[in-house]
Amino acid sequence: MAHDVHDLTRDLQTSNDAKIVMLVADGLGGLPMDPGGKTELETAATPHLDQLAARGVQGGSIPVLPGISPGSGPGHLGLFGYDPLKYLIGRGALEATGIGFELQDGDVAIRCNFCSVDESGLITDRRAGRIPTEESAPLAISLRAISIDGVEVFVEPVKEHRFVVVFRGEGLEGNVRDTDPQAVGVAPLDPVADDSGSARTVEVANEFLRQARELLAGQPKANFHTMRGFAAKPHLPSYREVYGLRAAAIAVYPMYKGLARLVGMDIVGDAQTLDEQFDALAEHWDDYDFFFIHFKYTDSTGEDGDFDGKVQRIEQLDAIIPRLNELNPAVTIVTGDHSTPSYLKNHSWHPVPTLLVSDCCRPDPLTAFNESTCIAGGLGQFEAKYLMTLALSNAGRLGKFGA
Amino acid sequence: MAHDVHDLTRDLQTSNDAKIVMLVADGLGGLPMDPGGKTELETAATPHLDQLAARGVQGGSIPVLPGISPGSGPGHLGLFGYDPLKYLIGRGALEATGIGFELQDGDVAIRCNFCSVDESGLITDRRAGRIPTEESAPLAISLRAISIDGVEVFVEPVKEHRFVVVFRGEGLEGNVRDTDPQAVGVAPLDPVADDSGSARTVEVANEFLRQARELLAGQPKANFHTMRGFAAKPHLPSYREVYGLRAAAIAVYPMYKGLARLVGMDIVGDAQTLDEQFDALAEHWDDYDFFFIHFKYTDSTGEDGDFDGKVQRIEQLDAIIPRLNELNPAVTIVTGDHSTPSYLKNHSWHPVPTLLVSDCCRPDPLTAFNESTCIAGGLGQFEAKYLMTLALSNAGRLGKFGA
Repeated sequence: MAHDVHDLTRDLQTSNDAKIVMLVADGLGGLPMDPGGKTELETAATPHLDQLAARGVQGGSIPVLPGISPGSGPGHLGLFGYDPLKYLIGRGALEATGIGFELQDGDVAIRCNFCSVDESGLITDRRAGRIPTEESAPLAISLRAISIDGVEVFVEPVKEHRFVVVFRGEGLEGNVRDTDPQAVGVAPLDPVADDSGSARTVEVANEFLRQARELLAGQPKANFHTMRGFAAKPHLPSYREVYGLRAAAIAVYPMYKGLARLVGMDIVGDAQTLDEQFDALAEHWDDYDFFFIHFKYTDSTGEDGDFDGKVQRIEQLDAIIPRLNELNPAVTIVTGDHSTPSYLKNHSWHPVPTLLVSDCCRPDPLTAFNESTCIAGGLGQFEAKYLMTLALSNAGRLGKFGA
Repeated sequence: MAHDVHDLTRDLQTSNDAKIVMLVADGLGGLPMDPGGKTELETAATPHLDQLAARGVQGGSIPVLPGISPGSGPGHLGLFGYDPLKYLIGRGALEATGIGFELQDGDVAIRCNFCSVDESGLITDRRAGRIPTEESAPLAISLRAISIDGVEVFVEPVKEHRFVVVFRGEGLEGNVRDTDPQAVGVAPLDPVADDSGSARTVEVANEFLRQARELLAGQPKANFHTMRGFAAKPHLPSYREVYGLRAAAIAVYPMYKGLARLVGMDIVGDAQTLDEQFDALAEHWDDYDFFFIHFKYTDSTGEDGDFDGKVQRIEQLDAIIPRLNELNPAVTIVTGDHSTPSYLKNHSWHPVPTLLVSDCCRPDPLTAFNESTCIAGGLGQFEAKYLMTLALSNAGRLGKFGA
């Protein structure tokens, strides 16, 4: 029997006043651009992180398993202590979460793509010529005219050919197959239920598709759409339940607020900058036990292949550390949800440099914080899903297992 | 599916004359008392351990999972190679084990607390005013007068308000809820069976409680008792079965003898000192393949917050190593069941410095043995439950998996 670490934390959690701050630099880990070179984190001047390193213990966080590159969903679930191989967020639900749509229990979310079909209904372009957002968004909004008995329907534009549909009503489940045939010259597939509980969802989807075909008829590019990644709201136990923590998320982007909301964190403040995020942290310091602070730009620069930009963003992050230290958290964690090396312009599987500071962290001898140091750190390499048990123990919030 | 490593060792075990010695310094790992300071093990002068380190390979043993602090039960089961998340020892069974009571299959052990109740039977003190042992022990022994048809009843005093009751008879199982309501001003709860197999245990417990109430009536403090942690003897496969080892335990304290007995080790000698333990080791050297030697005082000094005392105890342990070397075991292991930093005065989650020496251990370059060195060791960080497979392989006692 594989154990869920939450079975332990539910039983062993204890309460105190200790504050835990988890500062997540998205895509923190990197690679050298050239053989023998330095990574972004090694290149950046990070005096404040290095001071933390001298007081703390570091290691390499493996987001899912060695060699597995995670998306944002599993990357963050791991950091939050939810086994990313157990808790799967369906694509539709992640897409809805990413645009800030608050899914409710029983909702089914679907990621839709506008497509082009010919007179016979065969697909000629699976992405409607990558229709620009200015054209696609009004079309998506026009689909809000669709009305289905007994179901509330939400349609939300995303980018280019993408939009999200959410069905809200009784008896809807998400085990329905994609209608995208992944080919041109064929008709879209019919939605098919993979279990009896999803039969009603298929009826609703069929009715949506029928009305959408009418509403989009005559459009030059986007005259139909496919539906992918049908997904109910994932059922994640809350931070309060599994850890006994009042948790707050301080993020700029909807995706990370949404992921935090799925585990029961409160979204606090409406910060648009890192400074404003730390204003929110200080303001809400007394109201919560745990703070998740998300910094996006180490990932987005990495995805752009912008090595220097990522270095600058890391230095920006370093410069905020004194504001964190002023609050004197019992446990400070600096980590990332995965690596995003500029060299790869993509999420990667490499262990993420992770630093933990507390009065009982058993400091290792390291005095800098990066990919090269972390492999010699006292935390060794560990699966990200164990970071929260380490955080709780270092905060004195976890009792002994067994007598 | 999670695999039990015993499924492998059962198949792959082979036999030879190689001796394995596992020297367990309870609570070995520690922490500095001040930022930048040294741990107990780093402070102690340990020339003999350092010599072993130069010949051996070391690493950090994670007792259960990262961030989880174990009690003595799961801590030792892990070292013995039994997944501490799979093999749970109920509190009653551990308490009985801890006082040296030899549980038999079918026994149900219960940890009991004397309490004070008023005329209406409502609890006024859950621990009977923490009645001293001199008063409580005779009271516990007086409960041996209790007689129940078809069941043998054992009552054993423990410390202060605690005692242990064991029911021995047909058809008894341990899934019964605590009667301690965890509150005062209310009556003790009735014992309730959580499965049909435990119904008879509830009948027996009710009869025990009825007679105990009569026997204790009129006592000024301890005029009743609660029952907690009902537990059958845990079913652990034996060392002989899972490893093919004739195993001996050389321990001073009943708890560790009891834990060893649960996995089928023989308890040899009646040593009261470390020297006497090594006399017993030499005496029984030819009779066994595996020796578990338990040294308590690195834990008890840590729990007392006695940093200097723990340093001295480590030095005492170091001084005995030449006696171990004289016997020239094929595999020498020095480890702990968990860390007990004097700084925390408690068991902790920190990886335990662990050292393994054999002629084929692949030595790492380290020449000292402590918390700082072990993180750079050749064993890396590993879950304690894998220490026994490492021991067996290093002893040449484990064949190849698969062709």
